[in-house]
Amino acid sequence: MDMQAGYKKQLLPMEKVLRDPIHNYIYIQHQVILDLIDTKEFQRLRRIRQLGVASSVFHGAEHSRFSHSVGVYEITRNICDLFERKFPSQNADDGLWNDEERLVALCAALLHDVGHGAYSHTFEHIFKTNHEEMTTKIITSPKTEVNAVLRKVADDFPQKVASVIQKTYPNPQVVQMISSQIDADRMDYLLRDTYFTGTNYGTFDLTRILRVMRPYKDGIAFDMSGMHAVEDYIVSRFQMYQQVYFHPVSRSIEVILSHLLKRAKHLYQQKQFDLLGDVHLLAPFFENDFKLEDYLLLDDGVLNTYFLHWTQSNDDILSDLAERFLYRKPFKSVKVCESSKVLLPKLRDLVDKAGFNSEYYTATNDSFDLPYDAYNPKQKKPRTQIELQQKDGTLVELSKVSSLVGAITGKVSGDERFFFPKEMRATSNQLEIFEPLYQEFNSYVHNDNLVMKEDIENDKN
Amino acid sequence: MDMQAGYKKQLLPMEKVLRDPIHNYIYIQHQVILDLIDTKEFQRLRRIRQLGVASSVFHGAEHSRFSHSVGVYEITRNICDLFERKFPSQNADDGLWNDEERLVALCAALLHDVGHGAYSHTFEHIFKTNHEEMTTKIITSPKTEVNAVLRKVADDFPQKVASVIQKTYPNPQVVQMISSQIDADRMDYLLRDTYFTGTNYGTFDLTRILRVMRPYKDGIAFDMSGMHAVEDYIVSRFQMYQQVYFHPVSRSIEVILSHLLKRAKHLYQQKQFDLLGDVHLLAPFFENDFKLEDYLLLDDGVLNTYFLHWTQSNDDILSDLAERFLYRKPFKSVKVCESSKVLLPKLRDLVDKAGFNSEYYTATNDSFDLPYDAYNPKQKKPRTQIELQQKDGTLVELSKVSSLVGAITGKVSGDERFFFPKEMRATSNQLEIFEPLYQEFNSYVHNDNLVMKEDIENDKN
Amino acid sequence: MDMQAGYKKQLLPMEKVLRDPIHNYIYIQHQVILDLIDTKEFQRLRRIRQLGVASSVFHGAEHSRFSHSVGVYEITRNICDLFERKFPSQNADDGLWNDEERLVALCAALLHDVGHGAYSHTFEHIFKTNHEEMTTKIITSPKTEVNAVLRKVADDFPQKVASVIQKTYPNPQVVQMISSQIDADRMDYLLRDTYFTGTNYGTFDLTRILRVMRPYKDGIAFDMSGMHAVEDYIVSRFQMYQQVYFHPVSRSIEVILSHLLKRAKHLYQQKQFDLLGDVHLLAPFFENDFKLEDYLLLDDGVLNTYFLHWTQSNDDILSDLAERFLYRKPFKSVKVCESSKVLLPKLRDLVDKAGFNSEYYTATNDSFDLPYDAYNPKQKKPRTQIELQQKDGTLVELSKVSSLVGAITGKVSGDERFFFPKEMRATSNQLEIFEPLYQEFNSYVHNDNLVMKEDIENDKN
Amino acid sequence: MDMQAGYKKQLLPMEKVLRDPIHNYIYIQHQVILDLIDTKEFQRLRRIRQLGVASSVFHGAEHSRFSHSVGVYEITRNICDLFERKFPSQNADDGLWNDEERLVALCAALLHDVGHGAYSHTFEHIFKTNHEEMTTKIITSPKTEVNAVLRKVADDFPQKVASVIQKTYPNPQVVQMISSQIDADRMDYLLRDTYFTGTNYGTFDLTRILRVMRPYKDGIAFDMSGMHAVEDYIVSRFQMYQQVYFHPVSRSIEVILSHLLKRAKHLYQQKQFDLLGDVHLLAPFFENDFKLEDYLLLDDGVLNTYFLHWTQSNDDILSDLAERFLYRKPFKSVKVCESSKVLLPKLRDLVDKAGFNSEYYTATNDSFDLPYDAYNPKQKKPRTQIELQQKDGTLVELSKVSSLVGAITGKVSGDERFFFPKEMRATSNQLEIFEPLYQEFNSYVHNDNLVMKEDIENDKN
Repeated sequence: MDMQAGYKKQLLPMEKVLRDPIHNYIYIQHQVILDLIDTKEFQRLRRIRQLGVASSVFHGAEHSRFSHSVGVYEITRNICDLFERKFPSQNADDGLWNDEERLVALCAALLHDVGHGAYSHTFEHIFKTNHEEMTTKIITSPKTEVNAVLRKVADDFPQKVASVIQKTYPNPQVVQMISSQIDADRMDYLLRDTYFTGTNYGTFDLTRILRVMRPYKDGIAFDMSGMHAVEDYIVSRFQMYQQVYFHPVSRSIEVILSHLLKRAKHLYQQKQFDLLGDVHLLAPFFENDFKLEDYLLLDDGVLNTYFLHWTQSNDDILSDLAERFLYRKPFKSVKVCESSKVLLPKLRDLVDKAGFNSEYYTATNDSFDLPYDAYNPKQKKPRTQIELQQKDGTLVELSKVSSLVGAITGKVSGDERFFFPKEMRATSNQLEIFEPLYQEFNSYVHNDNLVMKEDIENDKN
Repeated sequence: MDMQAGYKKQLLPMEKVLRDPIHNYIYIQHQVILDLIDTKEFQRLRRIRQLGVASSVFHGAEHSRFSHSVGVYEITRNICDLFERKFPSQNADDGLWNDEERLVALCAALLHDVGHGAYSHTFEHIFKTNHEEMTTKIITSPKTEVNAVLRKVADDFPQKVASVIQKTYPNPQVVQMISSQIDADRMDYLLRDTYFTGTNYGTFDLTRILRVMRPYKDGIAFDMSGMHAVEDYIVSRFQMYQQVYFHPVSRSIEVILSHLLKRAKHLYQQKQFDLLGDVHLLAPFFENDFKLEDYLLLDDGVLNTYFLHWTQSNDDILSDLAERFLYRKPFKSVKVCESSKVLLPKLRDLVDKAGFNSEYYTATNDSFDLPYDAYNPKQKKPRTQIELQQKDGTLVELSKVSSLVGAITGKVSGDERFFFPKEMRATSNQLEIFEPLYQEFNSYVHNDNLVMKEDIENDKN
Repeated sequence: MDMQAGYKKQLLPMEKVLRDPIHNYIYIQHQVILDLIDTKEFQRLRRIRQLGVASSVFHGAEHSRFSHSVGVYEITRNICDLFERKFPSQNADDGLWNDEERLVALCAALLHDVGHGAYSHTFEHIFKTNHEEMTTKIITSPKTEVNAVLRKVADDFPQKVASVIQKTYPNPQVVQMISSQIDADRMDYLLRDTYFTGTNYGTFDLTRILRVMRPYKDGIAFDMSGMHAVEDYIVSRFQMYQQVYFHPVSRSIEVILSHLLKRAKHLYQQKQFDLLGDVHLLAPFFENDFKLEDYLLLDDGVLNTYFLHWTQSNDDILSDLAERFLYRKPFKSVKVCESSKVLLPKLRDLVDKAGFNSEYYTATNDSFDLPYDAYNPKQKKPRTQIELQQKDGTLVELSKVSSLVGAITGKVSGDERFFFPKEMRATSNQLEIFEPLYQEFNSYVHNDNLVMKEDIENDKN
Repeated sequence: MDMQAGYKKQLLPMEKVLRDPIHNYIYIQHQVILDLIDTKEFQRLRRIRQLGVASSVFHGAEHSRFSHSVGVYEITRNICDLFERKFPSQNADDGLWNDEERLVALCAALLHDVGHGAYSHTFEHIFKTNHEEMTTKIITSPKTEVNAVLRKVADDFPQKVASVIQKTYPNPQVVQMISSQIDADRMDYLLRDTYFTGTNYGTFDLTRILRVMRPYKDGIAFDMSGMHAVEDYIVSRFQMYQQVYFHPVSRSIEVILSHLLKRAKHLYQQKQFDLLGDVHLLAPFFENDFKLEDYLLLDDGVLNTYFLHWTQSNDDILSDLAERFLYRKPFKSVKVCESSKVLLPKLRDLVDKAGFNSEYYTATNDSFDLPYDAYNPKQKKPRTQIELQQKDGTLVELSKVSSLVGAITGKVSGDERFFFPKEMRATSNQLEIFEPLYQEFNSYVHNDNLVMKEDIENDKN
């Protein structure tokens, strides 16, 4: 017990720093934080790219989940420092900041993504894994190094940290720091992703937002004087989704990855797998029966290594998709709208006729995100709305005072696209036999949209 | 033939751009360049980190050789544009720029590092591979996609491109663009590495340096008015070596990697390998008998996947070193000077006694680089010196007019260090039995230097 | 004539560069441009701050109209280069770029603000001057050095340049480069003002916007692929207005300046002027009878020098306002809405009673700007709308495809404020006699708004 | 007394921030600091450019001494915060930081340049004023607002603040913060000047330098781990001097300014002044008999206003020099070395013969600065050397461990130049009568150096 109390408060004799391109330096002051960073489960994040396949479009975006995780920690540490300096709680009910919460907040910030795996979203989709569940398991399972470090603080500390990430922790300030519409997680990834992609859509004034944050009894609000900084953050987030996260070419690479994993699983289950090398690290997933240890052995490099083997498979679909993925041969895509959806069966049919199995060589995929949501009591899982605090202490919800945010509140943005092999749009060097087929296919595409022929005519007039 | 000529000049209907954090955009104008980027051998560079293990110290530095290679291409493209606009050759002997050289320069720039493999320097050291040779092979071997693209330009074009990289191409301007003390390669990596590490030591004024570059009959000179920009580049390069490339912790991780590969090779050759999974991708290297195809299958992820398997080996040294490498448990190190070298055998002995095989758990390692070299006719492989051009056309060598560069010309910088397990410096929680041993070990370390005890005493007086 | 033709095409033997924080370098290639920069009228812009009194809030924003003017030139030069390279006109009717227009475009860009005077907007308001008229006069009056340089190109060249700025030049591409909703002027000032203020609201991707610009017969359109970059520009512009240009404290300093000039004019016209030193440089303006030469002698320093003299005037209002202006003692302000306007007479009355002449010590001031306007045929002076070009060449107006822009199109943003001496809000150290008066005044102010008392009560419930 | 104690500790109810491009935000926490910023003497710094005439070369460098002064304050505030957090003094003799010193340090930092006047160095040279003396007077004279604010803290507080700036304050830590070879003053101006000029020579890692600063009994030392950051700062400073502060064109404009003031003083003393307008603000300086009040009325704008008047003087030299200064018509210059100095009388003679009074139209001017000085006991006013602290607490002087700094320690850098009217180098459009004269003049100039003819010949061979 005593030792636990000691460990909890144990500061490093000299604070350590990590050099970081976004925050300049990341300051490590607690022994607990240093020990968590040094665990196997956390170091593993160095081998998982934050943006998965997005680096196939923005080649600079090769940063890992490790770098994002320490960034979220650093922003959280800054918030705690500001709260402690400016809004220290004097009694239990004043709604101000109790610095006893610092360590649980810092640990939750650092570990909030520790359960992410290689190519998370796609992998989860095919293998029914869930990175949030995995995060909880890594924190609470007695087998992990992370858990061992946390237990040194207190026996119930792992569970506390997990509950912050699950949003069930009783203090809403701690929860909202890590997870809300304007939290340390989102703020770090916007700045980091914009830096590494080399775009500038995601920039906003972090210092000012931190400066206007203030704790209150139901969570965290923002001083009205910082309204424009918060507005700018929302707009930046909207633009990053539009420009980077929903980029059609990344989505196309993700489609290929998804079909590749689906094909491998299918072959495995059909016992038609003729692999060079083995697949033993993936087997538990093919068999829908995996353990935490199995999950922790996977990373981008392991999956890519399998894909490399598969390029030499004698299953044509598997080897071709593996090549397309590894050597970046994206599918093409066009926008689909409600009315043009009726064309999809016909297009899939043309793709099949051109010799591509449309199950593995086409897809439709939408990517929508709510840029900002004001509270809607009817929603199952309401998002926390952003509250601005006026001089007299009353709160106003952001979209009521920002015309820009008002314009995009509650609206879904994004588009739906149909993906198909680039070969379908070829205009020359083709076998003559396929000419008419390609011509028909292309007759439905106009200005990057899938359209009925008559609409094109109308449009021209 | 005709088709070749056509391909050589074939521009894209619309130039393509890659978004890049260093150069903002990278402009692709030739079909050849686009086709080269799309080859397997080039795409493979996405899976090899530019700075190898340096990201274990500077976590932002996770960028790949792909991103550096397109950057070198872009700088070269800019130089060609400036030379074509400002110094077009009028006749064969005027020493000015002949834009017919553009394509060979661009291809050489793009491909100059295409032969790099995973963890190049260490891997080469253990397996006697050589990335420069591999680059040549990838370009000239008829089996590669790169070669196929280059052959479409002309039958002798692959050989031409290779000769630029080998510095045997007859036009010294083209050679110096890609490879000299101030070339597109070095300029890109300084800017790129400084950006991704988040340091600012490597910044210099690229625009100004490009502006003052001028072709002359023996290569490329710099207008005297740009002297300070060139000086700043040299100093920046010096500082990046000191601060980033020679960082003791990166070198320590490299020591671990080197010992890990050495151990694996040893076990393989002793037929003591009990690996989970197989090692067939590495086998040709263990057997000193590999082909280009074998080499092209390796990347960071493949090696890391093997290391992951090896963490479960029953060879204690192999599994321990694999863990230390993957989960970043660096050795400690101290500086060694000529006089303190006599202590090394004693220290190795102490390490052995503490239970670590000193062959695999210690190393000495120096890292020296000549920051800038004026021409020295006695050197075997003289570096090209940097020439400044005065108003009357005469040339002056840089170190003669820059006191800063003069100060570091021809001097080696760097240090020699002795590496050993962190455990040797432990100060508590140790088995009592080792206490005296640790105490003796630490008695030789003072202010991060390995020192004779009497020197410490003198120093204090 | 011949000499004129020669001058028009005369390039500098070596292009000159100006170092610029926004564009890195500004490239001067034509002798005409260099000669224009060297004229007295242009050099005078160094002594007039671009943002007038805004540096009293954003102390970094001390940059001059000189620096903005060369920036607009540089962006225009870049557009011309891109148009010449990518869209050269082949015949008179193809709607593409005719590079013969380059020089007139560059000169108009450089000179578009040459008629600005000290503290333009306020000065113009009080003295009925007009900087656009002055720009035209400087260009076309035979007495100026600017005119002399332009005439060396061709006798009608000054008139041509002026007509571009007046938007009557026949080629709409040239006009829109300099003056439209997304022109070289606006793009430079957003980037420049954001840099010097140290905010980041005004950043956008200039390179990308330039890349997607294309000439067509009615002006300049933007490729659809650049929609998001254009959207980001519009949003950035909106945010700069909200955050910087409409800042209440700058507006308050401007109110003081305006009242100060009004008072001086009044005293002069009443012949009550007891100035230390003279006012001869201002006299023509007090007398509403000034010449171009008079106008060209004024700059920020000259006005400030007069204000310095006036601080020692024995007219209390004049000296006090001069002190408030020079030593930055801004008025306070509150937001006014339609319903609270009825309170203004009462507030002015309280200000008078507290001893401040409300004519000189209060003001209401609104600042509204249309962030983006789609074409409205009923408007007198319609703004050029922003057109996006689809693959098939058809145009779509921006607000139809951007939800963000759609949200703010045609809406006025800004607010109306009531300004009054800071002393009115004092809460202590006051003469007791004024206490009740101040209390009443402050009872109308709530959360920075002017409000009816009953509304405050309602708001609280 | 009590009131004083209260004022000293009086924090603002809400800290205020100034937006700053270098430090992002400047935090004002003490009422004293806010009150000092609001004084007339401090606000006056807004009208004096930090780099004087340098903006005639680097047009972005139009920032004022106000902006630098608040920057120095902010760096000092950061140092105090770090010292208080990491090195708080426990007893009077431990050589650590006593936070009672904070306010005197902050005030000295803010006010260290408050005595600067318009075009300081040149003005001082001609009128024998001294900005350091003026700073002391502004702080200690009971007539200033600055003094009144400081006296509210304690009666002897103004004197204390002044003594810090004069380096006689007993605590060497406070003195070295404000004034040493690596102090808040120099660190701010390097970063600020590099930002506003748009160069990047002056950048260095401020955060890291602050992190490794530590107080000790004789002042401030730097942890050895920060050696490279300190080295980079020294090199950056060296490069800024070479590239910006010693720029030949700025120095040439300064020569013109100096001659202009000299001429005006001469005419005034000869009673030959026929000025439009008056010169009463300058009269006390012409008469060598000025008071503090006189000094405080001058700023850049006032001087420029006089110069504007003087352009219409009927003294040809006065009006011509005023025009050259205001409308930026710099002299040309060439480098002079010891051996070529013998040519100067001949060159001056040629300038006289060409119709320019060589007293007012030529000058020689050297600009030298010691980039870094280790302690030299023989020097009258030794500079504080930079000490690095090793793990065992012992100190090592910087140049002993940095080869770069070693190379430039104690060396003067800079050059000596001869300035003359641009007209002397004209090559055409000249009156034939002067041809031979110009030819002779130019025969002494080669590669921007003044050289003996025989040397040119030798050089060519």
